[in-house]
Amino acid sequence: MSRMSAPSRAAREHAERRLGALATPPGALGRLGGLAVQVAACQGQVPPRPLEDVRLTIFAGDHGVAEHGVSAFPPAITGAMVRTFLAGSAGVSALAAAHDVRVRVLDLGVDDDFADLDETTRSELTRHKVRRSSGAIHLEDALTPDELERALEAGAEVARDAIADGAQLLLSGDMGIGNTTPAAAMISAVLDLRAGEVVGRGTGIDEPTLRHKTDLVDQALDRCGPRRGDPREVLAALGSADLAAATAYLLQAARSGVPVVLDGLMSVACALVAERIDPGARDWFIAGHRSPEPGQSLALEALGLDPLLDLGMRLGEGSGAVTAVPVLRSAVAVLREVALLEELGV
Amino acid sequence: MSRMSAPSRAAREHAERRLGALATPPGALGRLGGLAVQVAACQGQVPPRPLEDVRLTIFAGDHGVAEHGVSAFPPAITGAMVRTFLAGSAGVSALAAAHDVRVRVLDLGVDDDFADLDETTRSELTRHKVRRSSGAIHLEDALTPDELERALEAGAEVARDAIADGAQLLLSGDMGIGNTTPAAAMISAVLDLRAGEVVGRGTGIDEPTLRHKTDLVDQALDRCGPRRGDPREVLAALGSADLAAATAYLLQAARSGVPVVLDGLMSVACALVAERIDPGARDWFIAGHRSPEPGQSLALEALGLDPLLDLGMRLGEGSGAVTAVPVLRSAVAVLREVALLEELGV
Repeated sequence: MSRMSAPSRAAREHAERRLGALATPPGALGRLGGLAVQVAACQGQVPPRPLEDVRLTIFAGDHGVAEHGVSAFPPAITGAMVRTFLAGSAGVSALAAAHDVRVRVLDLGVDDDFADLDETTRSELTRHKVRRSSGAIHLEDALTPDELERALEAGAEVARDAIADGAQLLLSGDMGIGNTTPAAAMISAVLDLRAGEVVGRGTGIDEPTLRHKTDLVDQALDRCGPRRGDPREVLAALGSADLAAATAYLLQAARSGVPVVLDGLMSVACALVAERIDPGARDWFIAGHRSPEPGQSLALEALGLDPLLDLGMRLGEGSGAVTAVPVLRSAVAVLREVALLEELGV
Repeated sequence: MSRMSAPSRAAREHAERRLGALATPPGALGRLGGLAVQVAACQGQVPPRPLEDVRLTIFAGDHGVAEHGVSAFPPAITGAMVRTFLAGSAGVSALAAAHDVRVRVLDLGVDDDFADLDETTRSELTRHKVRRSSGAIHLEDALTPDELERALEAGAEVARDAIADGAQLLLSGDMGIGNTTPAAAMISAVLDLRAGEVVGRGTGIDEPTLRHKTDLVDQALDRCGPRRGDPREVLAALGSADLAAATAYLLQAARSGVPVVLDGLMSVACALVAERIDPGARDWFIAGHRSPEPGQSLALEALGLDPLLDLGMRLGEGSGAVTAVPVLRSAVAVLREVALLEELGV
């Protein structure tokens, strides 16, 4: 697999010169300055274009491990929430509407046939479906090799299509009861940590459930064995159809030269695996927010990314990434619109 | 002076019930949840109305102490930046345009007659002007008692007018070379601290200038003496026309039942004095961002406010408050638009 290109060094240097020439004291824009430079480098254009076409893809799927007591919610919630996204009344729907972000939800592995939906909606939702639920990772691989390939191709295709259609910035979101368990397993495997350092409370489990979840992740890691060293094997053994697709989506965005805003645990776990598959991918990633999940902070640190927001959000769905989008727009606006010192005549 | 009303307790409790009934896991919205409840309580309405009419007032003024070597920039920059706000090409102009915030700049004490401006612009800019520059606080009071009253009335009138015209959320911003010196003095006085704990580098002064600035603030505090215990005396002795007007603007917003997003050091120094003048004002204040100035964090802590953003911004102008506005809009959106669990049918 080819190594991707880096963001434009020439545009970065040009953007840094422009930033330094703005009629603002040196460094006064704080992180907005560096963020604007990163967007300009990704776009290869100074000043950067406004981020008008921003799209979130929510990768939905169920997880066999959710049948084994790792979540505060029953698996049937996954399908119910997918319907809520389609109805536009989920948390991320409200945020996306407020900030002009287009949302697409895709069923990669939901344990639901969505037979109640009209055919157009159902066909669009399930066109990339790999299977119903992924394997219970402490007992079996999440995906067969063929399923992994299909999931990876689906994620890449979704990113390619969005970019061909004009997307300037991609966001990845997730929906799937139990999905913090495979995400924690993926991070543990890549960073060579035991589950106790990585596993968190997800949507709010109690102490005994947390211990059980930690045990299952350790079992999954042990079952996976030395395959932990290969990022694709990590996706097949410890991930899921939805997480593999999200990983490929992030990679494809980077390969196509489009920056990505990461969300919480699932998104960042996929970004970590993407960086192992194709080093340099992280240069295209922007960390939207810090989640309370310890694994998310560990993965961000390993990626060298510092999140823009820290609001204690743990909703998933891409909600943290969407909430961070206006900060990126702020950054682009200052590098585009602020006068240069030489224009002030003082 | 009357004590203001608190935000609606009934609306707060109603908003908390609605938050708890949303189809999101308990606590998953993080700070967006509490913020939405606060806005609802301030509006006395559940769900809260969208924050469509948001206005920033930039209080501009010069400071006699700036002639005594406390800033990295010459005082003439104040007038030049006022012209940049009027032209819409300052940092905060770009941010405000990106986030649909109306900006008004007012000259309370700029050492410039703005004779080059057209009469309509000049008249609007200077209609509340109290004096040209405020007194050098280490040597003399910033304002006479009469000037203080005029500045306070100006700030209150500006807030009243904006609210009468439909403003749903007010922001305060500042412009004035040297203004971090009186702001640090005000915070030191109110919190009974010496300058060394409070003074910061402003727009980027070097170590000898920082020591000199600290000495001047201590001189100002000593000169002020026991008047430090009276918040109005603090404004007259250690503040300025622009800072006194901003303080009254914040107070009037609170008295009129309109929430305020605070900005950096100047805005928060004024909020601290406002809370001393009329305890309970802080219930109407939302901290927009954390500035690198140590005094800002000390004042926020004393006010019991935790900022929404921490992006290392130190531009002033109200820029941090404007950058935080989309976070408030996110909060309002989720409490307005997200489905209730009982509507999901699961």
